[in-house]
Amino acid sequence: MWLPSQLPDIADALREAGFRGDARDLADLTRAPLDAVVRVGGGTGSFVSADGLLLTNHHVALGVIQYNSKPGRDLIADGYVAADRGAELPANPDYRVLVTTGFEDVTERVLGQARGKRGRAYHDAVDAASKALVAECEAQGDVRCSVADMFYGTSFHLVTQLELRDIRLVYAPPRAIGNYGDEVDNFMWPRHSGDFTLLRAYVGRDGRPADHAADNVPYAPPSHLRMAATGPAEGDFAMLAGYPGITYRHRTAAEFDQQVNWRLPAQVEVLSALVDTIERVGATDADARTRYASQLASLKNGEKRYRGELEGLRRSDAVRERAADERAMLAATPAQLAAPIADLQALVADAAATRERDLLVGLVAGQAQLLRAALTLERLRIESSRPDAGRESGYQVRDHGLIEGQLRQVQRRYAPAMEKALLATLLERYQALPEAQRLPEFDAAFGRTPEALDAALDTLYADTALGEEDARLSRFAAAREGRALAADPLVTLAAALMPALLRIEDARKAREGEDLRLRPAYMQALVAWREGQGMAVYPDANRTLRVSYGRVEPLQPRDAVRHAPVTTVAGIVEKHTGEVPFDAPAPLLEAIAQRRFGEHVDPRLDSVPVNFLTNLDTTGGNSGSPVLNADGELIGLNFDSNWEAVSASWKFDPRYKRAIHVDMRYLRWLLDEVYPAPHLLEELGVPASG
Amino acid sequence: MWLPSQLPDIADALREAGFRGDARDLADLTRAPLDAVVRVGGGTGSFVSADGLLLTNHHVALGVIQYNSKPGRDLIADGYVAADRGAELPANPDYRVLVTTGFEDVTERVLGQARGKRGRAYHDAVDAASKALVAECEAQGDVRCSVADMFYGTSFHLVTQLELRDIRLVYAPPRAIGNYGDEVDNFMWPRHSGDFTLLRAYVGRDGRPADHAADNVPYAPPSHLRMAATGPAEGDFAMLAGYPGITYRHRTAAEFDQQVNWRLPAQVEVLSALVDTIERVGATDADARTRYASQLASLKNGEKRYRGELEGLRRSDAVRERAADERAMLAATPAQLAAPIADLQALVADAAATRERDLLVGLVAGQAQLLRAALTLERLRIESSRPDAGRESGYQVRDHGLIEGQLRQVQRRYAPAMEKALLATLLERYQALPEAQRLPEFDAAFGRTPEALDAALDTLYADTALGEEDARLSRFAAAREGRALAADPLVTLAAALMPALLRIEDARKAREGEDLRLRPAYMQALVAWREGQGMAVYPDANRTLRVSYGRVEPLQPRDAVRHAPVTTVAGIVEKHTGEVPFDAPAPLLEAIAQRRFGEHVDPRLDSVPVNFLTNLDTTGGNSGSPVLNADGELIGLNFDSNWEAVSASWKFDPRYKRAIHVDMRYLRWLLDEVYPAPHLLEELGVPASG
Repeated sequence: MWLPSQLPDIADALREAGFRGDARDLADLTRAPLDAVVRVGGGTGSFVSADGLLLTNHHVALGVIQYNSKPGRDLIADGYVAADRGAELPANPDYRVLVTTGFEDVTERVLGQARGKRGRAYHDAVDAASKALVAECEAQGDVRCSVADMFYGTSFHLVTQLELRDIRLVYAPPRAIGNYGDEVDNFMWPRHSGDFTLLRAYVGRDGRPADHAADNVPYAPPSHLRMAATGPAEGDFAMLAGYPGITYRHRTAAEFDQQVNWRLPAQVEVLSALVDTIERVGATDADARTRYASQLASLKNGEKRYRGELEGLRRSDAVRERAADERAMLAATPAQLAAPIADLQALVADAAATRERDLLVGLVAGQAQLLRAALTLERLRIESSRPDAGRESGYQVRDHGLIEGQLRQVQRRYAPAMEKALLATLLERYQALPEAQRLPEFDAAFGRTPEALDAALDTLYADTALGEEDARLSRFAAAREGRALAADPLVTLAAALMPALLRIEDARKAREGEDLRLRPAYMQALVAWREGQGMAVYPDANRTLRVSYGRVEPLQPRDAVRHAPVTTVAGIVEKHTGEVPFDAPAPLLEAIAQRRFGEHVDPRLDSVPVNFLTNLDTTGGNSGSPVLNADGELIGLNFDSNWEAVSASWKFDPRYKRAIHVDMRYLRWLLDEVYPAPHLLEELGVPASG
Repeated sequence: MWLPSQLPDIADALREAGFRGDARDLADLTRAPLDAVVRVGGGTGSFVSADGLLLTNHHVALGVIQYNSKPGRDLIADGYVAADRGAELPANPDYRVLVTTGFEDVTERVLGQARGKRGRAYHDAVDAASKALVAECEAQGDVRCSVADMFYGTSFHLVTQLELRDIRLVYAPPRAIGNYGDEVDNFMWPRHSGDFTLLRAYVGRDGRPADHAADNVPYAPPSHLRMAATGPAEGDFAMLAGYPGITYRHRTAAEFDQQVNWRLPAQVEVLSALVDTIERVGATDADARTRYASQLASLKNGEKRYRGELEGLRRSDAVRERAADERAMLAATPAQLAAPIADLQALVADAAATRERDLLVGLVAGQAQLLRAALTLERLRIESSRPDAGRESGYQVRDHGLIEGQLRQVQRRYAPAMEKALLATLLERYQALPEAQRLPEFDAAFGRTPEALDAALDTLYADTALGEEDARLSRFAAAREGRALAADPLVTLAAALMPALLRIEDARKAREGEDLRLRPAYMQALVAWREGQGMAVYPDANRTLRVSYGRVEPLQPRDAVRHAPVTTVAGIVEKHTGEVPFDAPAPLLEAIAQRRFGEHVDPRLDSVPVNFLTNLDTTGGNSGSPVLNADGELIGLNFDSNWEAVSASWKFDPRYKRAIHVDMRYLRWLLDEVYPAPHLLEELGVPASG
């Protein structure tokens, strides 16, 4: 995952891999073609026409589709084709598209006040400088600003993004195309999903971002991507740009060891226990089962991911390899870096002392819906007694809307018996921890035995009124003004636990400050070591725009098994059962059976391609990333990784790491033959079939 | 599956496929090399040395391995290597190896008395002539004889087989090699199983078959197969000889329709219901769960097979294709065949009138352990009142040993609550059948409502004494002499039901007689039709020796998935979990990790091959069949089919039908490096490594 600015330095390697463009054109993320790649919802999207047409994943735009569904008009089930611009449907008002317009080095501003400090003070200096930069930047209006740590505490950039607020739904395939295979096929290859949706960004008649209004006009993006005339084949060059989340590729050997030998197994264990708890209580309580369905799905997904990551890191022998690599690196590292590196190692070791407790306390605060509401109210009350700029992120005035939404949502996601059972599952594990990890406030509130815990939980949940929305919202009104909260057992509990939680937060921030201060030495040693091996280092992903290049590549996941890198519509028919999630729509099945393939057939496969596989480097956040060919033309849309690649956030193993994309020929065929939208094909510059 | 006698006729096709030998050498199953291929246990085996060394599957020889295990010597877990001939372990006394020595056309004798008759009389004439031929043949001693219907009632052969009775265990790999993957990998490819065992046949010092005795000598087979020096690769010619069971490739369109649209779905439904019943009762009854573990496994396996067959026949569109084929064939068929073909079609339709009942009654008599014992005793009593030659097959004096064994075995496989639940599951379905299918005897015994049924079963099983072994064996002693059986509720029930069961049997035999009489016309039309298409017809498999040829061939089971046709030991390590059934033994894992591959490495794969895949035509009974290369040398040992091929007993679909074999290089490597047996390698003519 290269920084755009690094690409000119590796121009030779890019050309050798097959790229036919000029690497210098990719160096600036605020110029074409990279400025066509934008943040959409929680993922990535790209402009594909001069009139603000946006391509992203069906799953990234799902909220927009859902928002426009109602009884009698199920756009998730049926899909949607806007017949003309007037029929394009407004997204939910909080849906945003962010176009990066500025990327400015602010390292001196961020680190100026931090230098010479340590720990929490170092952290706070960086935090205060960053907040000030953001506030200044956002004062111009219509933009979202953030400060990104680009290289382990040594390079900070201010990112300015134009915030487009009127986004509309243009074309969505039915769920049974956009999410064909759903959880069964999630992380799987071969895949047959049309996971795409077309949106359009609108602005006011003055060309500036505006709330939705009927007379808004399509946004004219600074640039847009062009559809390739042909499609990918095995071995072809491919590249991808997007906003990947967080990776940990350059962590220390000790951090790899902790991840594989403690954190992932511990997360799998405790998440499995929470899953079992929800299933056990839900087995005899249909109402609770419904209320916790979403939390259960999320826990299961998390547990599956952690298991996959663990399996992958073990398969790649990541701990042993990183340890050997680090040993060799340290042996070659100049003496002046030894002291800060040793301090970093000590810092990592130090965090391990309370890791079991910190994991459990984090889950207590996160997985119990009503207790979380009480903790949020209490924290909001505390923060709101300070000036807005000095408040903790997430509790500033700009965050009030989000907090209110969460407090309302609790209603649909809470059942007292379930919450007590979840807390018991977590707190019994806490009670079994050694003395050194105990928190007096937790012991006082929940006792030191399972019996005392059960009694405490019974009392708390019998007496609390926070299960009522009004009770939460009235306290929210008080908390955001820093006023005292009306009495309630859970509010009292939150106030009692808060000092312990703030101590943990303080320790974390102190460690983060030290980490920011010390890790540069480690990374300096690592970069030098890699350069000595003839390898360029790209910094870990940090939600800013990155570029990855590689090729269309098969996968050999097991002995004697080879997965071709391009699937076809034949596989849709093979998987079709008529039952969710393999219930391909009749118009699709008919078009396949009648071989109405038009111009979209791949001559080698004698069928219409659906998805393809590359060895491109991706992670969460790359959903919706455009995939380009050697000429920079659009050939695919990233939407998933294979199961074997779940561990790639820590280690990129070229044997197994693949990314899964929608083939643009499938999109074009659907728009041409199955759910026709000739006006959109024309806008995309694609000639319609006969 | 060609008859050996057909091979000279297709010599050109064989040569074109790559065979380098003379097809005429394969025409006689009583001459070399085919006389080296013998029946072993329920499968096939082949002689691989001049001293009677026999190669077959681990699962075919499992009973022998189990028989030689005892507390402290678990040969299933540990495997066995006989250090020398003195250490070769005797098989269970009823284990047999059958060497075909005669294959004589007896059509005239079999059909002579049948001609002019119809129905049951036709059946009985064929049956009586066959029994007489067998009795004459076996009078010479030391042989097992049978009459085989070689071509749909138009060609009968008397098969004479030398019956070797002293079989010994020579070399068995541990279960975790011989059955690596067990049920999880059953029907699966890619596969990594060393499913082989070496046995040795012994005879008396006079060279004739003998019971086990210390001074017996190794049997000198008429011929034996020779190991190939190299192994198979994709595209190589391969052929296989063995004793496949029954196939239905040339059934009528109506029979295909019944199989896919009624029989298989009905079998899946009722077997699933029986599985559910055993699991439901077993959930709260640990003792019953143990007793029915084997029956449960067998029901699950049956249900899985039927589901696979159904899935495969649907995937291959077998019903539609056979119907179109038959329509075209009938249009081209001369008028004189029309009448018998129409009669056959009517016969098939007629059998459908009571098919639901016949399926259920068959399961009632087969799946209820104690009721089956009572029915066996009652039938034995009836048959034993006649002269031995006139008794129903299975109830003659030669069958008494088998019956006694079954009556003893009931003890370990019966629990009253479970048997009542199984009968209720079946008989409730019977009670829901239309009036035309009802049997007065069943209605009288079990009532016409589920309540009456439950009451009847409760009374029967509360009062019966047949749960005691002594009670069964004392009645066995009476039954085999045709004497009346001591009173017992289940004995009384068996006597009451028997007239109904005999009516069903009589109707079946009458249909079989008509089938024998009428099907020749259909087959004559079919052969003529196929010859007009330039295709030779091989008759359906009937447990006699058949030869199949083809090549080493990959499988593309689904869109974008390709399975290579040769696996390697790398896959053993990938599948290894340390838990059954993927618990590869330490010596094997060590040899792989250290790459102690000796001469056995495949240079293209850079590893030792384990299993390979061909498009050879096989079915149940082909277990243990030798696989030969273009020069007739041994390269593999057949042991399974892929899941997609389960339906091949009805339709051979070349896209999906594959057979799975042990690569002889894996066997040789195990004998050379992992569990060494240099004396056996020498006997097999294989040079040991270094």
